[in-house]
Amino acid sequence: MNPEILRANEKYVDNYTRPDWSEFTNLVIITCCDPRVDPYGQLGLKNGQAIIIRNAGGSAVDALRSIVVPQYLLPDNNCEIAVMHHTDCGLSKVTTDQIRELVKSGNPGRDDIAAMVDNMEFHHIQDIEESVKNDVRYLAEHPLILKGTKLSGWVQDTETGKISKVVEAMALS
Amino acid sequence: MNPEILRANEKYVDNYTRPDWSEFTNLVIITCCDPRVDPYGQLGLKNGQAIIIRNAGGSAVDALRSIVVPQYLLPDNNCEIAVMHHTDCGLSKVTTDQIRELVKSGNPGRDDIAAMVDNMEFHHIQDIEESVKNDVRYLAEHPLILKGTKLSGWVQDTETGKISKVVEAMALS
Repeated sequence: MNPEILRANEKYVDNYTRPDWSEFTNLVIITCCDPRVDPYGQLGLKNGQAIIIRNAGGSAVDALRSIVVPQYLLPDNNCEIAVMHHTDCGLSKVTTDQIRELVKSGNPGRDDIAAMVDNMEFHHIQDIEESVKNDVRYLAEHPLILKGTKLSGWVQDTETGKISKVVEAMALS
Repeated sequence: MNPEILRANEKYVDNYTRPDWSEFTNLVIITCCDPRVDPYGQLGLKNGQAIIIRNAGGSAVDALRSIVVPQYLLPDNNCEIAVMHHTDCGLSKVTTDQIRELVKSGNPGRDDIAAMVDNMEFHHIQDIEESVKNDVRYLAEHPLILKGTKLSGWVQDTETGKISKVVEAMALS
């Protein structure tokens, strides 16, 4: 990382107030790691207020471990989980098979790499509203998500920053 | 999510300038989803500047899919990857086995749930510097991480906000 980042961290430390767990709103957000997605800004959240899980596409399947940990470790495990996918996502422009082919064609003769990617599910997004609904349904039906957990699914428009609710549900298992 | 968050999003939209991919610094940060970890503030980053992957503990193993996607999909795949774990992490206070027992004791008689958690690796952290080094080594040696990718490992002190470099490496495969 460049020296600017280290200087920025020095400034941050000078003005730092450690957030307290009492500021936590019980909100768990699952969203994409895309640089243009800023969950703090978009939702007016401050450091300390939400658990923010980010992965390529904002996949709830990929996030499962990171949801189970706070749901079972936090003293008050009454979390609310919001799945948020965004327009213009890289994973809406390719399929898992196409990513596998890209990796294989970049590594000719590497049977080990071919075997690895053929075993990986990249969670591509065919239709953004459907992918949000599918992810919320996955959590609603998953036995590891605590029964009664409030769930919601959102789309964020990367052009405007606007979030729109697609679905609401409750964990059933 | 509460109405305050929706009002905050309306304000955000009013003042939104869509970040451009030209602002991306090629930095990929893997860090924890803990509410007290704020990668933007800590590193002085603006929306658009970094890919930010977050999961419980900041596990590089868990983040693999989300690294492969940008490394192979972005036109300039010369990413630099920083793994950042933090002090006082929930996953440094338990082991994978203890989480499995917690889940099982919360769901007596549910053999399906017991089988699921017994198959899950929770990536607990025994020693924070060691866990950062192990994750950087995992990426350095992984055949799916592009050869020559710059890697670094960091610890963030949750008490002070300060980041400290633990290790640097380069992807070898």
